[in-house]
Amino acid sequence: MNTKLVKAYGTEASDKPLKLIEIKRRDLLQHDIEMEILYCGICHSDLHQIKNDFGMSAYPMVPGHEIVGKITRIGNQVTDFKVGDFVAVGCIVDSCHECENCKEGEEQFCNSFPTFSFNSPDKYLGGMTFGGFSQTYVCEDKYVLHMPEFKDLAAAAPLLCAGITVYSPLKHWGAGIGKKVGILGIGGLGHVAIKIAKAMGAEVIVFTTSTAKVRDAKRLGADHAILSSDEGQMKTYAGQLHFIIDTVSAQHDVNTYLNLLRRDGSLVLVGLPPKPLEVGAFNVVMGRKSFSGSNIGGIRETQEMLDFCAKHNITADIELIKVKDVNEAFERLEKGDVKYRFVIDMASLPK
Amino acid sequence: MNTKLVKAYGTEASDKPLKLIEIKRRDLLQHDIEMEILYCGICHSDLHQIKNDFGMSAYPMVPGHEIVGKITRIGNQVTDFKVGDFVAVGCIVDSCHECENCKEGEEQFCNSFPTFSFNSPDKYLGGMTFGGFSQTYVCEDKYVLHMPEFKDLAAAAPLLCAGITVYSPLKHWGAGIGKKVGILGIGGLGHVAIKIAKAMGAEVIVFTTSTAKVRDAKRLGADHAILSSDEGQMKTYAGQLHFIIDTVSAQHDVNTYLNLLRRDGSLVLVGLPPKPLEVGAFNVVMGRKSFSGSNIGGIRETQEMLDFCAKHNITADIELIKVKDVNEAFERLEKGDVKYRFVIDMASLPK
Repeated sequence: MNTKLVKAYGTEASDKPLKLIEIKRRDLLQHDIEMEILYCGICHSDLHQIKNDFGMSAYPMVPGHEIVGKITRIGNQVTDFKVGDFVAVGCIVDSCHECENCKEGEEQFCNSFPTFSFNSPDKYLGGMTFGGFSQTYVCEDKYVLHMPEFKDLAAAAPLLCAGITVYSPLKHWGAGIGKKVGILGIGGLGHVAIKIAKAMGAEVIVFTTSTAKVRDAKRLGADHAILSSDEGQMKTYAGQLHFIIDTVSAQHDVNTYLNLLRRDGSLVLVGLPPKPLEVGAFNVVMGRKSFSGSNIGGIRETQEMLDFCAKHNITADIELIKVKDVNEAFERLEKGDVKYRFVIDMASLPK
Repeated sequence: MNTKLVKAYGTEASDKPLKLIEIKRRDLLQHDIEMEILYCGICHSDLHQIKNDFGMSAYPMVPGHEIVGKITRIGNQVTDFKVGDFVAVGCIVDSCHECENCKEGEEQFCNSFPTFSFNSPDKYLGGMTFGGFSQTYVCEDKYVLHMPEFKDLAAAAPLLCAGITVYSPLKHWGAGIGKKVGILGIGGLGHVAIKIAKAMGAEVIVFTTSTAKVRDAKRLGADHAILSSDEGQMKTYAGQLHFIIDTVSAQHDVNTYLNLLRRDGSLVLVGLPPKPLEVGAFNVVMGRKSFSGSNIGGIRETQEMLDFCAKHNITADIELIKVKDVNEAFERLEKGDVKYRFVIDMASLPK
């Protein structure tokens, strides 16, 4: 298969900084789209992967899976897109197309595992896929999203991962008018969850360990923001919430939050704490409660989420950086020093 | 309030055997029913309570909450029952009547806590309620169940706790034709769960640690019975089950069973392991799965369960004992030496 060399920012080992490298992109197949990448968000899972925290990293690696671009070329069977369209690519760039989950539009749970936008076996070129810290992306049209009109296109990039990761469970567990929805943790995911849950009509109660974030939660639109160390306030929410989106990736006590749920409520984990979490039997048996999980969302739902966010004028709070500053951004991300998402202006990539 | 002394079998301390004692039953209020107790099942939670395993036991204590009897007297406002009717009382004998959960027929989750049939604060007489190891029971009609016709009335007694504890989640999570339902553990609860799930039309897969119970599971009606130590067989069920009823009360690895669930599947705990269980983030996030709990069932659903079991000729496999052998029965229960439930013939209680 013919390929084309393009510039990218990547790393050759878990302990090395990212630097300018060259990678191959495949020549267009009939259903492929080539896009020039305009913006790419930086997610905590990019950091996990470059550091090999999950033990599944291959190098050289080019991270980036919150990709916004503009179409430069299309394959001859592509009908739903045209050159010049603003488009996006999220976490999933291929899947088996045939299993029950794929057929039901839940490609994130593809029984043969989806192909992720980076560090995932590349069916076409061999080796691993390279992500969005690069000049272009090539992908089958089925996995490309139409970008609706956003006032700030750069700030929409994080919706491709952070946005869908919280939109999908908010939708699945029924956020809406009359529902009390808890959001646990305010970071890249949590701050978008507040905005989306409010736009869906829910009453939003945020739980945080930081006094500064109590103020910020209200600015972001939360109806109530509770310091989780405040036992008195925590007690007033016992048995009150319909469900909680738990965005915390560190070890934490989930039983405290199970106690805040009404009958049949769910605490829905979207972060990935590295060690198992302890769940008390009484905490789920009493009130028929659930400790559940949710993982990004399918392609159809990602498009739905983008259209919803554009309609409700929802984007992430971002800090736009140049690609040369990406290593520093990862250092700050590791310390939690970002409100709330870094996005790389890919025009800064040397041509 | 006037009371009546009746004979019972109870204990005066966590380290003492049960013996013949006398307890008070209240005189009938307008909505009360008095029944002569014919049979009373022995549940593992009776054992926990007499041993004070939950740290909430008061003495003297008369256990027993799987109570089948015959009405001897009724209050003047009772319209739905008559003297001579076969009736039953399960775990719940009172609740607030007013909270959302009570109004929705889920008295087991009453916000003010239901009154349980024994070792629970008695609103009328003060002290604690006394259970079914006794001559009579007195209870408001709202909490009394009509006993439909069973071939073996004694074997129906365990339905009042073991039956409803598994019927309720089987119904709630949708056991039926086309559903693959796992049952984890074959004891008092598990063996009834097999029968009910089959009668609901589900394909039933049982998981056990005992070779002998593999055979027994098939006799009880399971479609498949898997030795959980058989890695090869366990692997064939990965991602296959719609949900699993987990009846195990000891510490155990739940992640192995979460892996057997399909997308959106639930592992539903009905046992009460004393220490928290470890749940891996990946095990719930991948496949949007849930680790859930369920606790007995409401009064309306308990009646529905009794009618369902009578219709499908379902009772527990029991060993009928005399009340003088109850201490030995508890010893055997502690060792798991019963197939699968002891029931006391209360006619053996000295008058």
